Amino acid sequence: MAKIGLVDTTFARVDMASYARKEIEANWPKAQIVQRTVPGVKDLPVACKKLLDEGCDIVMAFGMPGKEPIDKQCAHEASMGIIQAQLQTSKHIIEVFVHEEEGRNDADLKKVCINRAVKHAMNAAEMVFKPENLRNRAVTGARQGREDRGGIE
Amino acid sequence: MAKIGLVDTTFARVDMASYARKEIEANWPKAQIVQRTVPGVKDLPVACKKLLDEGCDIVMAFGMPGKEPIDKQCAHEASMGIIQAQLQTSKHIIEVFVHEEEGRNDADLKKVCINRAVKHAMNAAEMVFKPENLRNRAVTGARQGREDRGGIE
Amino acid sequence: MAKIGLVDTTFARVDMASYARKEIEANWPKAQIVQRTVPGVKDLPVACKKLLDEGCDIVMAFGMPGKEPIDKQCAHEASMGIIQAQLQTSKHIIEVFVHEEEGRNDADLKKVCINRAVKHAMNAAEMVFKPENLRNRAVTGARQGREDRGGIE
Amino acid sequence: MAKIGLVDTTFARVDMASYARKEIEANWPKAQIVQRTVPGVKDLPVACKKLLDEGCDIVMAFGMPGKEPIDKQCAHEASMGIIQAQLQTSKHIIEVFVHEEEGRNDADLKKVCINRAVKHAMNAAEMVFKPENLRNRAVTGARQGREDRGGIE
Amino acid sequence: MAKIGLVDTTFARVDMASYARKEIEANWPKAQIVQRTVPGVKDLPVACKKLLDEGCDIVMAFGMPGKEPIDKQCAHEASMGIIQAQLQTSKHIIEVFVHEEEGRNDADLKKVCINRAVKHAMNAAEMVFKPENLRNRAVTGARQGREDRGGIE
Repeated sequence: MAKIGLVDTTFARVDMASYARKEIEANWPKAQIVQRTVPGVKDLPVACKKLLDEGCDIVMAFGMPGKEPIDKQCAHEASMGIIQAQLQTSKHIIEVFVHEEEGRNDADLKKVCINRAVKHAMNAAEMVFKPENLRNRAVTGARQGREDRGGIE
Repeated sequence: MAKIGLVDTTFARVDMASYARKEIEANWPKAQIVQRTVPGVKDLPVACKKLLDEGCDIVMAFGMPGKEPIDKQCAHEASMGIIQAQLQTSKHIIEVFVHEEEGRNDADLKKVCINRAVKHAMNAAEMVFKPENLRNRAVTGARQGREDRGGIE
Repeated sequence: MAKIGLVDTTFARVDMASYARKEIEANWPKAQIVQRTVPGVKDLPVACKKLLDEGCDIVMAFGMPGKEPIDKQCAHEASMGIIQAQLQTSKHIIEVFVHEEEGRNDADLKKVCINRAVKHAMNAAEMVFKPENLRNRAVTGARQGREDRGGIE
Repeated sequence: MAKIGLVDTTFARVDMASYARKEIEANWPKAQIVQRTVPGVKDLPVACKKLLDEGCDIVMAFGMPGKEPIDKQCAHEASMGIIQAQLQTSKHIIEVFVHEEEGRNDADLKKVCINRAVKHAMNAAEMVFKPENLRNRAVTGARQGREDRGGIE
Repeated sequence: MAKIGLVDTTFARVDMASYARKEIEANWPKAQIVQRTVPGVKDLPVACKKLLDEGCDIVMAFGMPGKEPIDKQCAHEASMGIIQAQLQTSKHIIEVFVHEEEGRNDADLKKVCINRAVKHAMNAAEMVFKPENLRNRAVTGARQGREDRGGIE
């Protein structure tokens, strides 16, 4: 029975983990889900690693970096750490970050968050349960957060 | 009995570690606290790792990077090292950095420092004693140093 | 019997892995090929490492980063992870990234992709089967994606 | 008996290691000192690690990066490596870098170098012999190379 | 009997490894030399690590990054990997990179390449055979590629 970890932050402003959780529960009722919260994105790498060490097959890391240069640097540092945590455990962590300036306003930002969280929840679950589904969507210009772009004919 | 490490620098100009210590002692009297000081932020990663190796359950790393580009680079390098130290030990290090330009003047800078130190002290202690409290504050737009922003309805 | 791994993304828009596969099959019929797909370039490092851990002698990692600053940062983070994965396994991963702005238009972009995929497929296969061939092409100003530049006489 | 390593470069133009050595010998006559030289700052991380592996309790790494962007990048890479070397060995390396543009002219640059080398020599020796001395100088706005700034009252 | 590895790329346009090889053979006839070629600079880190794992005492890594921003990023990633490979093996890798814009034209570029390759070949051989020679050239403002700058009196 596959176990999926979800880690989010107190810093974020949209509850992406809950949207991901619903998507997984609706489509993969047998998946076991574990949830954790940390202060900010830089606390995500080790939190994800701990969940993978405790038996999760895959972890989703949700974060909402702000728009200042320092926020960009924090997101970069977090991403580097998330990649290192994967290499240490040989398991995937799906990073689901939405940058504040991706939304035209709060409502639009929320829409991007939900779209990205739900699409990546499908990715994460399939990577564990049906990795061949990912193969079928290879090079289709898939986008999480907005419309897919499609491949070049 | 949980053990919390506090590491600060001779470079900094506000005694954030003492504010954090008081906050922890007032609310979690059973916590054991260990304190260390190093020259600058780039000395923090290994100092934190040593405390975690010596049995601390969590460590807080306090730093006050200056406003020059070289200071930004030092802070970035320190942050990368702090994330690596966490991944090596599978324990959390709460980075509490206040950049000099975050304050409008010395008095305002000190206010930011105290606010951030105290709020993160609460985060650190709860991550050890009551991690479910963090879950309850998930995606609330929490900010350390200034007012919380709140979530998007 | 050498085993070559190919990993691409759902994000990409040109099927570079198939062009590489054909090149390898045409020239090195004994090579065994394994293929995987992940969502984006930042998921490539651990996917490559898993294939190397499962017995691949070399892996090719295909990605098509977009043109925004955030895309550049993602590509940088992916590249750092791909280098780390190589150092952990002591095996080569050939990174085959084509940046969206490398093409004047979709048709030109596709041409760059095919050229780079095919030339790097030859590199990857030779690094496993005939590394001395690489020695013979040393410092020839070789380019993948466009024309070679040649060495300085 | 504590052993302190000093590593400098052929690239540098001021003999910081000798000033540090004199400071240590004058104040901590029992310290054993080992010295090495490498070509440039990017050769420092592994040179420091080797000295730590060979029994040094702490190492000082002296470098003088130039003023071009490529020099800044080299210094950044060296610093990242120095932090990693510390995390691998769980011992401190005190980085003593002086950037060429820190001096108004050669004479001023030399003054900055000597001040920084001597103050950090004191830091390094105390971190081994009397770490509580660092605690006493915590958050005093200490600067190496120029005047201390003092804490915020 | 010391063993020195030389790794270059098909991307480069000047045969620096051959100039280095001749310098070593002329002055250290007992040195055993092993040569490898990889496609580009990002393939150098693991190639160097493999040579060190196979018994080389030191490795020289030759690369010629182009002048575009993406080339600078590749060189940076390669340098980070080369430093990590050294820290993993506790052996030195001498990075010999010449950036395309360092030469005023092809002829000048070639001159820089040869000067840097030859001087670093001397550094590499001495680091293995006579490390005390490096100590004697400490802080002399040594430059590879152009004239030495000299120390500050």
